[in-house]
Amino acid sequence: MNYCTHCGQPLTLKIPPEDQRERHCCEHCGVVHYQNPKLVLGTIPAWEDKVLLCRRAIEPRHGFWTLPAGFMECGETIVEGALRETQEEAGANISMGALFSVIDVPRIAQVHVFFLAQLQNLEFAPGSETLEVRLCNEAEIPWEDLAFQTVRLTLQRYFADRSNGMFGLHQAVIAPGHSAHAFA
Amino acid sequence: MNYCTHCGQPLTLKIPPEDQRERHCCEHCGVVHYQNPKLVLGTIPAWEDKVLLCRRAIEPRHGFWTLPAGFMECGETIVEGALRETQEEAGANISMGALFSVIDVPRIAQVHVFFLAQLQNLEFAPGSETLEVRLCNEAEIPWEDLAFQTVRLTLQRYFADRSNGMFGLHQAVIAPGHSAHAFA
Repeated sequence: MNYCTHCGQPLTLKIPPEDQRERHCCEHCGVVHYQNPKLVLGTIPAWEDKVLLCRRAIEPRHGFWTLPAGFMECGETIVEGALRETQEEAGANISMGALFSVIDVPRIAQVHVFFLAQLQNLEFAPGSETLEVRLCNEAEIPWEDLAFQTVRLTLQRYFADRSNGMFGLHQAVIAPGHSAHAFA
Repeated sequence: MNYCTHCGQPLTLKIPPEDQRERHCCEHCGVVHYQNPKLVLGTIPAWEDKVLLCRRAIEPRHGFWTLPAGFMECGETIVEGALRETQEEAGANISMGALFSVIDVPRIAQVHVFFLAQLQNLEFAPGSETLEVRLCNEAEIPWEDLAFQTVRLTLQRYFADRSNGMFGLHQAVIAPGHSAHAFA
């Protein structure tokens, strides 16, 4: 961040008055440019004992497997965002279930949120950011080829809860030292 | 948003290739400037049958009452952010409890998240953004003078759950037509 989005003048990195953190400040027009974490929203679309996975057609993690998920957009709710990403990436029609996992990835300033979901039918198809869409039971999950640690953790908790007969809410942190692939 | 933060040249509002939404794009250096919703994190600090409220010393909603809450910062987790805001605004020491409410405010592109919390002692004091901090039981809550609808909804659900003897997870949306005061 080099220039002010408001007036185009160079920015200064400094702690504004009555703040505790360095921000990109414009000395010309006075605007302080705050940067905040982003929400990534996704679903666990279930069909019988299987879940729907997408193989990524884009970087980062091209060719690796993920649950349908993406950045929340302005103007939508978290449920609308998760539905939209599932439609865009997997062409899947789902009924939304409960909030299932909320996972912090502080190293990359992201919070990943996944919802339980039920596939309505078997008419799904890869979107433009997806190479392939596949239903996998627990044994068929490509555990070594998952794109993101938040997806791995969500799937692990999902199958554990499923075998216990009850789905809970799971909160977790991908520790800063841990190699987390940035979602982008 | 008028100028590119990367190179300082004027921005164009257009739909980038393989996107579905208008973004602020730099035709000079190629950077696309995405804007995404922000997370606001807070707590419901409880002491016996009371909760701790803060009267705001800043705009918006100067003089109105709120639960301690504020924007999530890069590099922290949602729990760390909620703890920090409680410390900064109310000078309160708490032990964190469960995730309690997740409320979308799509009109202003915010998601407000509140956690249950237990006050550790009665040593609290207003921070620089707070005029006054007060413990209120349900009857003492200044319902007509609350700063934000997400705070009102969270407190309503809190006292309802409390009288039912069990705290759940509450997901809600402040409808776009509804007059929601922007948190800032």
